[in-house]
Amino acid sequence: MSDQNLEQLSINTIRTLAIDAVQAANSGHPGAPLGMAPMGYTLWQRFLRHNPANHRWPGRDRFVLSAGHASMLIYSLLHLTGYPKMTLQELKDFRQWDSQTPGHPEFFHTDGLDATTGPLGQGIAMTVGMAMAEAHLAARYNREGFPVFDNYTYAICGDGDLQEGVSHEAAALAGHLGLGKLIWLHDDNEVQLDTMVAKADSERMRLRFEGYGWQVLKVEDGNDVGAIAAAIEQARAETAKPTLIQVRTVIGFGSPRAGTPKAHGEPLGDEGVTKTKQALGWDHPAFTVPAEVAEHMSALKRGAAQQAEWEEMMNRYRAEYPELGQEVDDLLERELPDNLWGALPQWEAGSKAQATRSSSGEVINALAPLVPGLVGGSADVSGSTKTAISDSEHMQAGNYAGRNVYFGVREFGMSAAANGMSLYGGLRPLVGTFMVFSDYLKPAYRLSALQMQPVTYVLTHDSVGLGEDGPTHQPVEQLAMLRAVPGAHVFRPADANETAAAWALALEYKKGPTALVLSRQNLPVLPANHAGVKKGAYVVRDAENAAVTLLATGSEVALALDAAEALAGEGVAARVVSMPCFELFREQDREYRREVLGTAPRVAIEAAASQPWFEWVGTEGGLVTLDRFGASAPGEVVLEKLGFSVQNVVKVVRETIG
Amino acid sequence: MSDQNLEQLSINTIRTLAIDAVQAANSGHPGAPLGMAPMGYTLWQRFLRHNPANHRWPGRDRFVLSAGHASMLIYSLLHLTGYPKMTLQELKDFRQWDSQTPGHPEFFHTDGLDATTGPLGQGIAMTVGMAMAEAHLAARYNREGFPVFDNYTYAICGDGDLQEGVSHEAAALAGHLGLGKLIWLHDDNEVQLDTMVAKADSERMRLRFEGYGWQVLKVEDGNDVGAIAAAIEQARAETAKPTLIQVRTVIGFGSPRAGTPKAHGEPLGDEGVTKTKQALGWDHPAFTVPAEVAEHMSALKRGAAQQAEWEEMMNRYRAEYPELGQEVDDLLERELPDNLWGALPQWEAGSKAQATRSSSGEVINALAPLVPGLVGGSADVSGSTKTAISDSEHMQAGNYAGRNVYFGVREFGMSAAANGMSLYGGLRPLVGTFMVFSDYLKPAYRLSALQMQPVTYVLTHDSVGLGEDGPTHQPVEQLAMLRAVPGAHVFRPADANETAAAWALALEYKKGPTALVLSRQNLPVLPANHAGVKKGAYVVRDAENAAVTLLATGSEVALALDAAEALAGEGVAARVVSMPCFELFREQDREYRREVLGTAPRVAIEAAASQPWFEWVGTEGGLVTLDRFGASAPGEVVLEKLGFSVQNVVKVVRETIG
Repeated sequence: MSDQNLEQLSINTIRTLAIDAVQAANSGHPGAPLGMAPMGYTLWQRFLRHNPANHRWPGRDRFVLSAGHASMLIYSLLHLTGYPKMTLQELKDFRQWDSQTPGHPEFFHTDGLDATTGPLGQGIAMTVGMAMAEAHLAARYNREGFPVFDNYTYAICGDGDLQEGVSHEAAALAGHLGLGKLIWLHDDNEVQLDTMVAKADSERMRLRFEGYGWQVLKVEDGNDVGAIAAAIEQARAETAKPTLIQVRTVIGFGSPRAGTPKAHGEPLGDEGVTKTKQALGWDHPAFTVPAEVAEHMSALKRGAAQQAEWEEMMNRYRAEYPELGQEVDDLLERELPDNLWGALPQWEAGSKAQATRSSSGEVINALAPLVPGLVGGSADVSGSTKTAISDSEHMQAGNYAGRNVYFGVREFGMSAAANGMSLYGGLRPLVGTFMVFSDYLKPAYRLSALQMQPVTYVLTHDSVGLGEDGPTHQPVEQLAMLRAVPGAHVFRPADANETAAAWALALEYKKGPTALVLSRQNLPVLPANHAGVKKGAYVVRDAENAAVTLLATGSEVALALDAAEALAGEGVAARVVSMPCFELFREQDREYRREVLGTAPRVAIEAAASQPWFEWVGTEGGLVTLDRFGASAPGEVVLEKLGFSVQNVVKVVRETIG
Repeated sequence: MSDQNLEQLSINTIRTLAIDAVQAANSGHPGAPLGMAPMGYTLWQRFLRHNPANHRWPGRDRFVLSAGHASMLIYSLLHLTGYPKMTLQELKDFRQWDSQTPGHPEFFHTDGLDATTGPLGQGIAMTVGMAMAEAHLAARYNREGFPVFDNYTYAICGDGDLQEGVSHEAAALAGHLGLGKLIWLHDDNEVQLDTMVAKADSERMRLRFEGYGWQVLKVEDGNDVGAIAAAIEQARAETAKPTLIQVRTVIGFGSPRAGTPKAHGEPLGDEGVTKTKQALGWDHPAFTVPAEVAEHMSALKRGAAQQAEWEEMMNRYRAEYPELGQEVDDLLERELPDNLWGALPQWEAGSKAQATRSSSGEVINALAPLVPGLVGGSADVSGSTKTAISDSEHMQAGNYAGRNVYFGVREFGMSAAANGMSLYGGLRPLVGTFMVFSDYLKPAYRLSALQMQPVTYVLTHDSVGLGEDGPTHQPVEQLAMLRAVPGAHVFRPADANETAAAWALALEYKKGPTALVLSRQNLPVLPANHAGVKKGAYVVRDAENAAVTLLATGSEVALALDAAEALAGEGVAARVVSMPCFELFREQDREYRREVLGTAPRVAIEAAASQPWFEWVGTEGGLVTLDRFGASAPGEVVLEKLGFSVQNVVKVVRETIG
């Protein structure tokens, strides 16, 4: 069989596996894999460095199918290149419970994926973070003759990806940083779900991306393997700019619905499958992989050799640069220093009041030398969020060693990039913005959680207490929003010491993101109680025969203590509990939880929406919370007017205890 | 005084009012108003049609200060042009409790604002909706010689606005639609908060915006009133494309911090103010408005004349086209038809099961003829969300009469545009996407609530019950997120009849957005109970001496009914309550709430995060909810595996009642 015939046979194998699987599931997206198969084939067969036998090998190229609905493309490629768990049976079980082949690709679920995709725009945005991670780690750790970090990052994306706003943020950032090893292939098929692209979008993608500083290439015929390969070569040759390759394809290629929106998201039907196979010249039973294709496409040997070469280089690197070698190994394992907790700054109770955002800044700078993977930045509010590592530079085009990033006013792109940096391996990204703008990054926060990536979100200016900037800048419902996300940890520390402990716990938690919700205003320093923070909640002021338990977080812990003092003066004994992290508190045994919460009636105090508090105070408890938007005025005025005063807490306590 | 001197004096009046107010507040952003003052002056003095005495006059031009932190620019302009409530005292009370001058401009709080701004990118995105509304209403209602809807929409934006992803979505949509009366002035000052723009962004804005199909103009000197005016003229002359005018300004012009990030967000200090005034040649006391400036800039006469001319034309229009005139008047008043409730489709209990998204589609099409302001579309999932008005076209460039919009895969831009359409007046926009992607539009949803705009969000595929698309597409925490937003209504109807009632209530609610959370899967039709839905919750199945009350929403109401049946078979009497809208239920009197909830232990059933349910079931109630991500498999399998089965509900009930 000629090379060209073998190529065509391979491409049609990808195509027919995809439509057979969609048909078997009677659910899924046949159109995209039919059109994308040649570019998927070309990229994986001719360029992608990966080892199916070791899917997390750090030296591999990264590939993200940003158009995640085309999942059968990547599942077919994983099967054909030899990923052991991706058996033919798994393809037959597409979209079934517990299969390796969920509807959209899920990192941590299926070997060989570099990211979870489906929420459009985020796949490509994560590749920007991956390419940043590669450039950054290369700048810090590569040495002459030792390309420890040296890989390309590829994505295939659709029109939907490029319509999403996050594509703008990510592409502008990638262009600014000149990420020359980042390559996106645009499945430019002129069709979207509702209609033809021309009915919803008139962008000239070339101008737009050249505006971002990208190289833009065009492949006129998406079935032309040679042209696709030449474009990828040209993309790799441009080392100072990322490249967008517009590949003109036909959605649903070969099917009766080719070139129409109908090809997008519905199975072709038995007849459609038959006709498509006829058009492709395919006359095998469903789920057939011709032996010559299996042999041709297996990446097992090639991948093993590539990895072995890298490992050998790494061994020489470790010998030549023992300290760096150790650091790289620790980094890739996300090892934390033994003395993490000891290295935290400590503040004496009663020492100068300090905003927890400032405490966080001190902690970041104390830990940065010990946690080399700690990198990050903010969405143009670093001075306010105190997220900068002061003894390091900012990452810039051509100079990627800086551990700080000017992300620009791009909260969502920043957070998606952080997910990509984390997925790349080794890094422990932190990102910062104002708490209220967690709204802008929520979709990426969810993907941190779903992908179990330990990104730390530093969210400052955490309540109406921020004052004058007013309701557009004052979070109210964001704590409820973040606390509802499965697998994420949310801390709202009461003071400097709780902030330090929260940072250590954020670094120790490796199964998801952590949000650190921090004050703009100064808060008094309480006695350090790391053990208490580790348990999520603890008693900060006890009282014998307490008539009420005051539950509070963050800036409201000090208010609760003042209120307890006032209540004591009125003969009402009040216990005060600080609850920096609900998730950790829920994990404690029932006995500890009972011990902390006590048996007295409870009153919750938090300058935020009440929704999360009913879990702790029940239907009969008291609430000093906020179910309205804030107002513009000095912070202490706003807090007082909205009920965050000793007087009002005392009033609510009296109403609650009757 | 020469015209030019008067102009300069006026511009410096704007500048000095801004810095005096920031200084008085000791809080705020002096840099932007200093740089923007000439363009603000030129636009308002030479172009903007508005009437300070009637700030909601429908014929006015629209102006949005997207860089909301520059609020003192617009407050100064409002004062100088003669808005009665914007007294000099209000400027002196900048950023104080209950003043007319909050930190960021707040629609509904301050007369003369067309939008609330501050969350970057959203101001300009809303102007796209305003321009769409104008073009749409003009196409439907203008007649030869009767330009009923005929105004320009202007925005001033900063670098931050253009870095935000939503700027991409909005600009691409505006370019696609060829909105020729939309004009953005970019305060191109090369400085952002953290650093110089060049450190965070290398975009060539001209290419990017030409890629979107915009006209791009440049003003080299942002102090050159003539050049700014010429550019605005040129922008208005281009009727087939929106225009971006890049105005090169100096942030903090005249101040010691001019041209640096330090000028952005801190008061200048007394010395800085003094030096700035010296540089501007200004030697008046703080808060001085020279008499000739007051006279020159007052828009009262001009605005009254403009409005009178429009009113006169409207009177002739009403005479010439009585029916249209009535429709326009009703539209602008957001009148609803008297027979709204009677016009709703009705379904007989037990008739064919139907997805609530489909029921919603039927309701939309039943109401569209009666509610001419109903316009909208979806983020490229109209076929799935059933949001299209079937007897109307889609809005396209040059043909704006269609009531449907192909928003593209742009959830956030779509929702911000909907806010703009609603703010424009008259329209009742609806937008649709999958429930999980409410994450992408959350920032706009918040602004719907904060601005009290009655946008209807049709959010379908509302639980893991959507099945095969898997966890990236399965909402879990989104109900908690939306329910925590102050002032918004969230409905999760149990069937077709509840869906119809929810739509009517969404239209009747004029103080904020409504989210309709709808199923992908078919749900049985229950007996209609509009009165129950109006109260937010009601008993759908009662039982004498109920041992348990099952509280459920949406698809889980049917499950609760099945479970109640099973429990009855086991001798356990269960009441079932449908709770489509928590917000309305909270508004009922205590007696009704008690009556509905009963005194038996309660079990909540909802395929979503548990957080919102503790309010109703307390700490001792039972929960059949979901605090993990979903999984890819057929919907009924996923629901069953995750506990949404009769068997599991019965089990939880037994545990709860002990």
